[in-house]
Amino acid sequence: MDMSPKARIEFAIETALETASREGCPPMLKDAVYHAVLPAGSRVRPSLCLAVAHACGDPTPHITDGAAAAIEFLHCASLVHDDLPCFDDADTRRGKPSVHNAYGEPMGVLVGDALIVLAFETLARTMSANPEKLAAMLPVLSRAVGMSGGLVAGQAWESEPSAPLSAYQSAKTGALFVAATKAGAVSAGHDPAGWEEFGARLGEAYQVADDFRDVFSTAADIGKPVHQDQTRGRPNAVRQFGRGGAIQHLEALVGRAIAAIPECRGAADLQQLVRMQVRKIMPKDIELAA
Amino acid sequence: MDMSPKARIEFAIETALETASREGCPPMLKDAVYHAVLPAGSRVRPSLCLAVAHACGDPTPHITDGAAAAIEFLHCASLVHDDLPCFDDADTRRGKPSVHNAYGEPMGVLVGDALIVLAFETLARTMSANPEKLAAMLPVLSRAVGMSGGLVAGQAWESEPSAPLSAYQSAKTGALFVAATKAGAVSAGHDPAGWEEFGARLGEAYQVADDFRDVFSTAADIGKPVHQDQTRGRPNAVRQFGRGGAIQHLEALVGRAIAAIPECRGAADLQQLVRMQVRKIMPKDIELAA
Repeated sequence: MDMSPKARIEFAIETALETASREGCPPMLKDAVYHAVLPAGSRVRPSLCLAVAHACGDPTPHITDGAAAAIEFLHCASLVHDDLPCFDDADTRRGKPSVHNAYGEPMGVLVGDALIVLAFETLARTMSANPEKLAAMLPVLSRAVGMSGGLVAGQAWESEPSAPLSAYQSAKTGALFVAATKAGAVSAGHDPAGWEEFGARLGEAYQVADDFRDVFSTAADIGKPVHQDQTRGRPNAVRQFGRGGAIQHLEALVGRAIAAIPECRGAADLQQLVRMQVRKIMPKDIELAA
Repeated sequence: MDMSPKARIEFAIETALETASREGCPPMLKDAVYHAVLPAGSRVRPSLCLAVAHACGDPTPHITDGAAAAIEFLHCASLVHDDLPCFDDADTRRGKPSVHNAYGEPMGVLVGDALIVLAFETLARTMSANPEKLAAMLPVLSRAVGMSGGLVAGQAWESEPSAPLSAYQSAKTGALFVAATKAGAVSAGHDPAGWEEFGARLGEAYQVADDFRDVFSTAADIGKPVHQDQTRGRPNAVRQFGRGGAIQHLEALVGRAIAAIPECRGAADLQQLVRMQVRKIMPKDIELAA
């Protein structure tokens, strides 16, 4: 039976959570980890991983799904830690109380840790029968969240007196998009390097779309506080270029992303999907030309 | 040139730190990560990993060293997070300011995250040419720090209204000792399951030795606050069994650990080493019979 990409992702995530918490997991930790991951957010990154693998033929879907779940766990871990009082001090996330708000600060720290570990445990579990792909996958994911150019670096730039803007944004947002496209390629046995540019430009486009949401959406629409960029003095493309300029910038990035898709049998479908996804994550009343 | 185990461990740790922070690492994060890992603590866990690998012939020392460094990073990550204000709120560690005390709370959180990731990045880097061993190593390490029975579980039990004592201690201390012995076996191509009991009993013995240090040492001796078990209402074998009873308990655990060493060509040396190490970590004025 063929499952939709969305169903595959949720199944992989729930299987990983269940397997990891089946025996001897402290009850509050288990609740808090589930709270951080379910119900589903937009799952943009794992969807991208599946889309790339699909475009490349996806010969080993269980490996794709394991990588996709791992990527989502790493993303959720960063959200939980970013929400902590010592960073954004955010009370809500995905329309619910943030983890530390619901379960206390110790759980906020531990759920992030648990999800980072779970990501790697999920790779180990789903790829044990295919060590070659595991060996190619592990550096892709670990670099994407690491201290040089990964998510941890991105968050750490916020503590520096000054930060190079492109390094900050590519670490904070781009790295996990790049990991998602590369992971899809690795799973399909394609060269991951060829997929880096596509992931990087999509990450930038997503960042601009997120800037639109921060400016034009309400907290109820997106389930987290808005106007955070202004409050925290962070760069925002809409404030920088204006609404029209930011739309042009976004469309240019999407165009560059699409142009960077390597030759593969599903390239045309993938282009379509990208355009559709970008429209989906923009605030409803903003129309794109492409 | 043969290096001593200690030199091998420090070389592996410094190589991993340097490689991971060479390009694009935010400067304060880099300083704080180094602060958390250097200068060397006792390196008990990586030494154990090398000792087991050595007893089994150690045919691939660079894999042993990579695993040993990864284990120490995971250990350091847990120290940094445990020291945070929302847990132990410890101002000192290894005779220096704790990470959050020296660099602020955001760095305390991020350094722990960075070190968890670095552990897995180190496995990926040092074992890329040996995917089969990587595939066997990854679950050993990820389970040891995971949400069921690993370090994260151990710390999370402290947030539960009540915790099963043996589950708490085996997760908080035992799990990484078990990972250390199993990792040594995996590196040497031996069955890791046979080395679990040895690691588990050593972990328990180490916990009791740590209880002695908490009661009988000074903060200057051990570079961190003492009498924490009493202050925080945590179990302590010395307070529970008395000094004499706790010494007997410790000796029994060491005996059981030694009895559990699987057949291997270096078994006798390994026994010697265990007895020596246990004496080394006990407060100076407490003598063991064995």
